[in-house]
Amino acid sequence: MTATNRWMIKNGSFAVADGDKPVIQGCMVIEDDLIVYVGEETPELDGDIPVMDGTHLFFMPGMINTHGHAAMSLLRGYGDDLALQIWLQEKMWPMEAKFTSSDVYWGTSLSVLEMLKGGTTTFLDMYDHMDQVAKVTEESGIRASLMRGVIGLCPEEVQRHKLNEAIRFARDWHGKAGGRITTMISPHAPYTCPPDFIEKFVQAAHDMDLPMHTHMSETKAEVEQNVTEYGLRPVAHLEKLGVFSRPSLVAHAVHLTDEEIEILAKNKVAVSHNPGSNLKLASGVARVTDMLKAGVTVSLGTDGAASNNNLDMFEEMRLAALIHKGVSGDPTAIPAGEALKMGTVYGAQSLFLNNVGTLAPGMKADFIALNTDQAHFLPHTDLISHAVYSACGKDVEHVWVDGKQVVKHGACLTLDEERIRREAQAAFESLLSR
Amino acid sequence: MTATNRWMIKNGSFAVADGDKPVIQGCMVIEDDLIVYVGEETPELDGDIPVMDGTHLFFMPGMINTHGHAAMSLLRGYGDDLALQIWLQEKMWPMEAKFTSSDVYWGTSLSVLEMLKGGTTTFLDMYDHMDQVAKVTEESGIRASLMRGVIGLCPEEVQRHKLNEAIRFARDWHGKAGGRITTMISPHAPYTCPPDFIEKFVQAAHDMDLPMHTHMSETKAEVEQNVTEYGLRPVAHLEKLGVFSRPSLVAHAVHLTDEEIEILAKNKVAVSHNPGSNLKLASGVARVTDMLKAGVTVSLGTDGAASNNNLDMFEEMRLAALIHKGVSGDPTAIPAGEALKMGTVYGAQSLFLNNVGTLAPGMKADFIALNTDQAHFLPHTDLISHAVYSACGKDVEHVWVDGKQVVKHGACLTLDEERIRREAQAAFESLLSR
Repeated sequence: MTATNRWMIKNGSFAVADGDKPVIQGCMVIEDDLIVYVGEETPELDGDIPVMDGTHLFFMPGMINTHGHAAMSLLRGYGDDLALQIWLQEKMWPMEAKFTSSDVYWGTSLSVLEMLKGGTTTFLDMYDHMDQVAKVTEESGIRASLMRGVIGLCPEEVQRHKLNEAIRFARDWHGKAGGRITTMISPHAPYTCPPDFIEKFVQAAHDMDLPMHTHMSETKAEVEQNVTEYGLRPVAHLEKLGVFSRPSLVAHAVHLTDEEIEILAKNKVAVSHNPGSNLKLASGVARVTDMLKAGVTVSLGTDGAASNNNLDMFEEMRLAALIHKGVSGDPTAIPAGEALKMGTVYGAQSLFLNNVGTLAPGMKADFIALNTDQAHFLPHTDLISHAVYSACGKDVEHVWVDGKQVVKHGACLTLDEERIRREAQAAFESLLSR
Repeated sequence: MTATNRWMIKNGSFAVADGDKPVIQGCMVIEDDLIVYVGEETPELDGDIPVMDGTHLFFMPGMINTHGHAAMSLLRGYGDDLALQIWLQEKMWPMEAKFTSSDVYWGTSLSVLEMLKGGTTTFLDMYDHMDQVAKVTEESGIRASLMRGVIGLCPEEVQRHKLNEAIRFARDWHGKAGGRITTMISPHAPYTCPPDFIEKFVQAAHDMDLPMHTHMSETKAEVEQNVTEYGLRPVAHLEKLGVFSRPSLVAHAVHLTDEEIEILAKNKVAVSHNPGSNLKLASGVARVTDMLKAGVTVSLGTDGAASNNNLDMFEEMRLAALIHKGVSGDPTAIPAGEALKMGTVYGAQSLFLNNVGTLAPGMKADFIALNTDQAHFLPHTDLISHAVYSACGKDVEHVWVDGKQVVKHGACLTLDEERIRREAQAAFESLLSR
């Protein structure tokens, strides 16, 4: 039996979920991969344990990015400000069709590097060549919910092959990387997968007891197409196909009726709200306040870097807190504390992880420290307000996942930053010339 | 006669306004306070001159923040997510009423520190105790357009006193700090200044040949009040009072009719768009694409930090580029290049400065360098896209104003950062206890 690695942070400010005091000054004790204490008092502990000084640091749960396609960072800035169909057909799809396993490895490495340094400790990835994404997850120390996203607009034989690949990946990697990887089953979207194909994914998810993830109602056009083709809006369509009989998470959910919000709430379907991507692609503004009011779990995702164009979850929190105020005319909509939960604990709930997303005893030690000794964090009126309304990913000083430090003073300890930058640039140039 | 200070940047990427190539790889030569060359070739120059290596740096004009109240940074995070009237009446106004010259000095210092480090080289400030703001401008090396903002809801004698103070300040400081300070004449808003009082400001602006600045049509309620009280919407009201007979800049302009946009265009009235503040206070979304289409100069402002909550102009550029796409449904609205101009050259035009805002020979050497050797700047597809859609103020590595370096490797060379942070915190605590 190996000795327990126990250490303590003193003199820090800590974001501790609910209650009268969402921020406390005090102490946190970590034992191996777990938080074992957080509170205002310094506990009496046996023996000398290492102490880190938390002065000028604000400790909060690591951010949880609940929707994305990490390898798409290779296409960051390659085609902005275009109509959606031109962007997809002339820019994204031709380049993505050329992606090799190596491209996915380096593109994902670039994204994971950006996410870790920016305070994201868990990410969801729906893409192809997923073994590479799992490999980067293993190497980097990040936590991830991974899945092969399958587009079903192809012959039955190809469909069968892709489904088997998705099942194989989900089975092989679930629980791996010391438990940091979990998997889901993921048909890409109702408009890219025929109904009988989606039903096969539902069956697979039941068989393996895994949750499901899909894009849904991102654009008005796809909702209209769903009604034309199947006589139902996407929510009723997916409910009918059995998707919501599984724990499930849908991305975007921009265009919803009151009735659809009720169906999501009734089925406990979580929503990944992607404000940056939805604005940039002009998809619209999701009805987040209505969803939250109805009891739907709404978390935050960056989507791929090609439509964002960064993976800074602080920006997504701020966008969520700002746009729903501006569009609704209600300055009390999505207050800072709620935006922070969307970026953390609601993210954990959306990925069906019950041991991350808050700083509390028994939770995994996935947490970050922001440097509060900076002009834009002063005065120290309300650190949660500052984290949501003033911070950016570059304010993150340290990051721990599963109790291990992965970012120290802004530098990533687990990845070769210089090599990743070089290889990502080379991969893009090679894609252009292929 | 002092010797000329001439130096050169080689191997950099430079944002050079219009043309087929908005970004060039090359060289820039600076002579004292001016840019004398920027281009792809390295010019032949007499004698040895100092050379800076610009590898991995993206040089762009310094950002120009065209509306704000710098000292309000002391109230950052003091009352968020509240209804507007509660925020003003219970939080902002009681605290601001207690502001002394010293508070304004430290609050402004905190803001200027944040702005310089974040790449803002010129800011507009409309506030009280303006001699303090001018003092901070002198000390810090930043460029500023300064004005005493006057609220006229007071007895005539007090009005007269305030007007004289505004005139005295504008006269004393115009052209000072080596020309870095210019001044304007500024009645606070149509709803806080009676018509005859506004006319006195117009007369003063004519007498001193200075531009005018005012808040206008920030909220729907103030537009309605204007119609009730004066029978006119704010644009026609200000036009009637002669404000637009001067070069003028209005802040916010959220609620406009087609006809009002035409009046602004006809009179060449510039607009400071403040997307972060408008969203956070739930004022609404300004008709920026319509204004730009009509030929109105639209620049960007942060407003005070109490309603933003930071002074990061990269965030304002990104918000401008994102929200108007999302709200209009047009993904081609406000492309990255246009957002960059809103943050730079349109800002210069809005402040009636014709020698800043672009990197070109003959312009003042007000420019910044972003570190592009970072994950979220890769691949190097389009540096203007990255500056707008991916960057934040903390990516700014170096800043020069008037040819002098004021930020080097992220540290401010002209201000005592540690002291400003300490004094700003102390000022806030003192305000709370007074």
